[in-house]
Amino acid sequence: MSKDYTPKPEDRFTFGLWTVGNVGRDPFGDPVRTPMSPVAIVHLLAEEGAYGVNFHDNDLVPIDATAAERDRIVASFKKSLQETGLVAPMATTNLFADPVFRDGAFTSNDARVRAYALQKSMRAMDLGAEVGARTYVFWGGREGTETDVSKSPLDALKRFREALDFLCEYNLDQGYGMRFALEAKPNEPRADLYLPTTGAMLAFIETLEHPEIVGVNPEVAHEHMAGLNFMHAVAQAWEAGKLFHIDLNDQNMARFDQDLRFGCQTIKPAFFLTKFLESVNYENPKHFDAHAYRTSDAEDVKAFVRACMRTYLILKEKAKAFDHDPHIQGLLARTRENDDSMNDYLGAYTRDKAEKLKDLALNREELAAHGQPYEELDQLTIELLLGVR
Amino acid sequence: MSKDYTPKPEDRFTFGLWTVGNVGRDPFGDPVRTPMSPVAIVHLLAEEGAYGVNFHDNDLVPIDATAAERDRIVASFKKSLQETGLVAPMATTNLFADPVFRDGAFTSNDARVRAYALQKSMRAMDLGAEVGARTYVFWGGREGTETDVSKSPLDALKRFREALDFLCEYNLDQGYGMRFALEAKPNEPRADLYLPTTGAMLAFIETLEHPEIVGVNPEVAHEHMAGLNFMHAVAQAWEAGKLFHIDLNDQNMARFDQDLRFGCQTIKPAFFLTKFLESVNYENPKHFDAHAYRTSDAEDVKAFVRACMRTYLILKEKAKAFDHDPHIQGLLARTRENDDSMNDYLGAYTRDKAEKLKDLALNREELAAHGQPYEELDQLTIELLLGVR
Amino acid sequence: MSKDYTPKPEDRFTFGLWTVGNVGRDPFGDPVRTPMSPVAIVHLLAEEGAYGVNFHDNDLVPIDATAAERDRIVASFKKSLQETGLVAPMATTNLFADPVFRDGAFTSNDARVRAYALQKSMRAMDLGAEVGARTYVFWGGREGTETDVSKSPLDALKRFREALDFLCEYNLDQGYGMRFALEAKPNEPRADLYLPTTGAMLAFIETLEHPEIVGVNPEVAHEHMAGLNFMHAVAQAWEAGKLFHIDLNDQNMARFDQDLRFGCQTIKPAFFLTKFLESVNYENPKHFDAHAYRTSDAEDVKAFVRACMRTYLILKEKAKAFDHDPHIQGLLARTRENDDSMNDYLGAYTRDKAEKLKDLALNREELAAHGQPYEELDQLTIELLLGVR
Amino acid sequence: MSKDYTPKPEDRFTFGLWTVGNVGRDPFGDPVRTPMSPVAIVHLLAEEGAYGVNFHDNDLVPIDATAAERDRIVASFKKSLQETGLVAPMATTNLFADPVFRDGAFTSNDARVRAYALQKSMRAMDLGAEVGARTYVFWGGREGTETDVSKSPLDALKRFREALDFLCEYNLDQGYGMRFALEAKPNEPRADLYLPTTGAMLAFIETLEHPEIVGVNPEVAHEHMAGLNFMHAVAQAWEAGKLFHIDLNDQNMARFDQDLRFGCQTIKPAFFLTKFLESVNYENPKHFDAHAYRTSDAEDVKAFVRACMRTYLILKEKAKAFDHDPHIQGLLARTRENDDSMNDYLGAYTRDKAEKLKDLALNREELAAHGQPYEELDQLTIELLLGVR
Repeated sequence: MSKDYTPKPEDRFTFGLWTVGNVGRDPFGDPVRTPMSPVAIVHLLAEEGAYGVNFHDNDLVPIDATAAERDRIVASFKKSLQETGLVAPMATTNLFADPVFRDGAFTSNDARVRAYALQKSMRAMDLGAEVGARTYVFWGGREGTETDVSKSPLDALKRFREALDFLCEYNLDQGYGMRFALEAKPNEPRADLYLPTTGAMLAFIETLEHPEIVGVNPEVAHEHMAGLNFMHAVAQAWEAGKLFHIDLNDQNMARFDQDLRFGCQTIKPAFFLTKFLESVNYENPKHFDAHAYRTSDAEDVKAFVRACMRTYLILKEKAKAFDHDPHIQGLLARTRENDDSMNDYLGAYTRDKAEKLKDLALNREELAAHGQPYEELDQLTIELLLGVR
Repeated sequence: MSKDYTPKPEDRFTFGLWTVGNVGRDPFGDPVRTPMSPVAIVHLLAEEGAYGVNFHDNDLVPIDATAAERDRIVASFKKSLQETGLVAPMATTNLFADPVFRDGAFTSNDARVRAYALQKSMRAMDLGAEVGARTYVFWGGREGTETDVSKSPLDALKRFREALDFLCEYNLDQGYGMRFALEAKPNEPRADLYLPTTGAMLAFIETLEHPEIVGVNPEVAHEHMAGLNFMHAVAQAWEAGKLFHIDLNDQNMARFDQDLRFGCQTIKPAFFLTKFLESVNYENPKHFDAHAYRTSDAEDVKAFVRACMRTYLILKEKAKAFDHDPHIQGLLARTRENDDSMNDYLGAYTRDKAEKLKDLALNREELAAHGQPYEELDQLTIELLLGVR
Repeated sequence: MSKDYTPKPEDRFTFGLWTVGNVGRDPFGDPVRTPMSPVAIVHLLAEEGAYGVNFHDNDLVPIDATAAERDRIVASFKKSLQETGLVAPMATTNLFADPVFRDGAFTSNDARVRAYALQKSMRAMDLGAEVGARTYVFWGGREGTETDVSKSPLDALKRFREALDFLCEYNLDQGYGMRFALEAKPNEPRADLYLPTTGAMLAFIETLEHPEIVGVNPEVAHEHMAGLNFMHAVAQAWEAGKLFHIDLNDQNMARFDQDLRFGCQTIKPAFFLTKFLESVNYENPKHFDAHAYRTSDAEDVKAFVRACMRTYLILKEKAKAFDHDPHIQGLLARTRENDDSMNDYLGAYTRDKAEKLKDLALNREELAAHGQPYEELDQLTIELLLGVR
Repeated sequence: MSKDYTPKPEDRFTFGLWTVGNVGRDPFGDPVRTPMSPVAIVHLLAEEGAYGVNFHDNDLVPIDATAAERDRIVASFKKSLQETGLVAPMATTNLFADPVFRDGAFTSNDARVRAYALQKSMRAMDLGAEVGARTYVFWGGREGTETDVSKSPLDALKRFREALDFLCEYNLDQGYGMRFALEAKPNEPRADLYLPTTGAMLAFIETLEHPEIVGVNPEVAHEHMAGLNFMHAVAQAWEAGKLFHIDLNDQNMARFDQDLRFGCQTIKPAFFLTKFLESVNYENPKHFDAHAYRTSDAEDVKAFVRACMRTYLILKEKAKAFDHDPHIQGLLARTRENDDSMNDYLGAYTRDKAEKLKDLALNREELAAHGQPYEELDQLTIELLLGVR
């Protein structure tokens, strides 16, 4: 095949500094790769065709940097963006790595830690604003428990809400114009994280003072860890107007957080996700929150970067082929052939409609006998994915 | 010990007809127990000390009953309630067992099935109202997919919302005064169910036309199937004012839906759940949505019924002991000793507060060095549970 | 593409009567499809190109059939095999559906049930032998517990071993010449099944009196339910000379037993499995232990049958392409470039070798710096699977 | 209650240097506790009542220590053992932390790494022998893959076997008299580890040249990660005479490796495990392979150490109470009341027995009607655990 899978700026493909720069440390092993400077990462991403780069405050500026060091680092980072044409559309706060957050950041039982987390977030938002970030992500990696004796979830929810309300106001007050995107995860590094799914986050957002500027940042791996259908979560977020950002990667179900290359493990779900995003014209960043295997050297990290984007583009093309496949579309039409048959009874409630519907003679056995060609449709999809149709 | 663990009406312990009446069929095996009549179940529950009995329409009235049969059945059921003093606080519709729902009820691709599901629900609500049900549960056991080629989740969400909005109006129009409680489940019997967690349901409720009368019915087993902390989900629902009902049972994590006896598998989570419900004075029904092992005979089913209630009461007593244990309470106080130290900086946003907080000198290393006695607290909890303190 | 994916007898594709004949009952729903007679299933399979058909005793002969009924049924079944050219290479006993097995078959606490299970198995082996089965499968669907208070696993292992030793002898004594294949499953329908993985079964076989005629029947879904890599289990069985049979289907990880169409969910694992089986020239039956979705009608069941075989053949072709892809093979060679560099130190132990190896200077840092191109290799595999290379 | 739960040497409670010394690093966070010297850990364990201490080579001797440093460290460690009376019954090799093992140790694709792993293991065995270790554990934390394109599991099994055969010979040749204990884990830090369950390890051992000196070291958390019943795995190992060592901790099912305090999460399984170990008079070490929460300070680490042992002793006492509870024992006897009724038909095969059994009239319906009081028995167990009977 001669298709062109070269990434373009309009694909809005972004990577975090921490993804490409991942040094391969894990719970049982030491780093295997040399740290890369933010500037080097920006250049690597530009060469491979990415649109943007995202960062936690401390990916860019070490937690104990002086003001002068900070300014020098930020200046060189901004320069690298200018040189390469990359943007920095998303920023976030590292509220999990430092020992100070061992019992949570916004939900810590120590009010001084909660204050520090707020302070660190405001400074990190300043940093994000300075480099032009439009989306600000919150992942509460330490907002959870190992044992529920340690704190009440009611206290935790209250504290988390208070912090987000505070920071929304800060954002508005500073005129940063950023939108917040909340990222859920069921567990790891803590035994149970609060608001563990995208659904829980969406419900929580409705309890905030400024829900209009707060949405979600769903991540493939995080929903898979709970055994959930990621695309369904994304659809709920999209329908609610809350899909402000997305973390594309992969995960082989309930186990440690793998952050695998997009589409490398669960091909079919990756296809339906891509198809969904394309069908609704999702235009916010597509962020690859993944990292190369610990076996990878620097060259293989580049292969990883290219592959994330390339797989998305391949799947995007297949989504288009799906939409134009007459056999598939014909079968799909057949599955909805009775769509308009009940228009007098469905839709908005009226008393008259309800009464008519209650009296309507519907032949249950006849309706039950009507099967759907979903095995055939699914197999056609598999064959389209495998490139044999 | 001489404690009294006899259930009382104010405990609001309820069982479904389908739980006590479960005949022990499973995917690989035929029924092992003789079906019990609804009336017989009511009497059994009354003898064992339950407060109420819940039902799906077809637990009580067979799907193909004539109007006369229906009325005779309902009359005898109501009579048994009067005789025993039991109430029927919750009713629900069986929208999953009949073949007609093989591709969903409210979300079926066949509009005629969607109409039938609405019709069946209205009739079942009439039935519920007739016996005095105050809560109406919706569990969408067939609202899902085996393959996402079959339908768009956006269509499914739209259809599900339309159905619930319709039935809310019907409820209001009929003056039934019932509250709806939506029950989430991640999978089984379908590969992926829509709105798979209590969190997702809470978010969905906010998109309805009458969110004020719609809450949730979280079930232990269903959240455990997704590896989630059930009590955290319950807390989020409670805080949102949406804990209209609860399904108590047990489940050993991600696997088939076990519907085990409450507290028989995950003792510690059952304790924290009970402690939570007692601490917030939860007063809606506590429904045991469980069934006896397939090995049980009729006598063992009774032992199962007694045990569900008894375990709750034992755990309730332990929750009280926890609250009055000076050592535990002393340690807990210590974990929050700095609670008021940051009152000038936390709470509602003001520009002044933000500026002061950004400038505040906080010693990160010092704060980080501060550990918490959670192992000790957790062990004290375990020992309290084990009855050795 | 114009490839021919038509199944041939030498592909050894088989289906169980219970797979194609599945009526779509599940824990929450009644049957949706009309039962098919064994003869009708044989003809359907023959038309779709299968090689053979497998059965539980009661798939063919109802548990309460008279001797005359049995003989008539068997005769018509054998006639259908002759007419179609299909073989019946594998048979097995249904030791799980009848209520008598509610507490286990070979491991029941009731010695009379254990005796009945043995009796039923001997009769079922007679039936298997009569139709020419060469492999006899044992799946202990009820050999487990809901609570470990019910029996000791030591008793269970002892009972299970005694039964298998007995039946091995029966097989030898009758001159049936069958090989036994043990099938593991972690849970469902019971909470925990004994010998829950293929690995556990392989270890158990070594404790039998006739290990030489006992091997395993690994099933994709069953290992996936435990989150395990199925191909690794198959490889261990193969290496031990114990891969007597295989159950091909699919399963989306830890949840209820889905028995999905082969290759429909976990495409990449299905590819590596196919590649493995082809690379070792596995020649025993390839049994599709799956069933069509409950939404399927009779036509869609046929599509399901065709698709199982077709997907295997597509993946088999891709395995061949993988083996002949110069880029992939070049990279693979590179990953093993030092394979012979340590021949003086590795291999069978000698004291001299050990001493030399202990003294050998190996530069740890240098070796550690050596990465492997596994991201690139994996992506090439993904692209080969997607048909874009 | 006034029971004494003070650990005694005959309890054989051991801890690893890495467990008590865990500094609280995790995939998302930096260390929170100060490293403790091996000598300090030995003294802490002695004060808390442990029997022994275990170690990886590099827990004791840094990987880049000089020979002189090594000898000094070993001397001081041995001195601390003498001073405290602790023993060091188990040693093991760290074959996972150093970057050199990024693609495996014994199964690496780089023969030089395989040689280095052997070399390191021999040296570590020398170290273990020097301090008196009788059991040598092998946990292959890097023996796995992220993608099956990287290597064939057949190669991996061959390499792993070759290494173990080599080291068995080394052990014999040196006269160390140690027994090997293989520890399985399904995943983490790699996506899939080879020989992922205790069952798989038991099968693998039978393929070694010296199976008589090789057994297993099952770990609670590792089997729970695969959703398996740990006690069942332990029973299979015990029955095979292979339970050389055991790792006691806890894990809340399929998720990252939690290494929680023994009995803190899954109380009932911990009870049945303890009951099993006591019932068979297991006398090898009981190793707590756990670590304190990351929130713990030094005092809380001590609480954690005490609690691991204390919980075991509490559960041991409950196991004794279970064995002496007349009601429970009466019910258990009832569950096996027909145990001897089939002695003429069960047991070792004879042709005559088989024929008689095939002809025996067994009333299936009657047997099927016989239920078992497992709900009642399970509830009695729960109440015994909760200290209310």
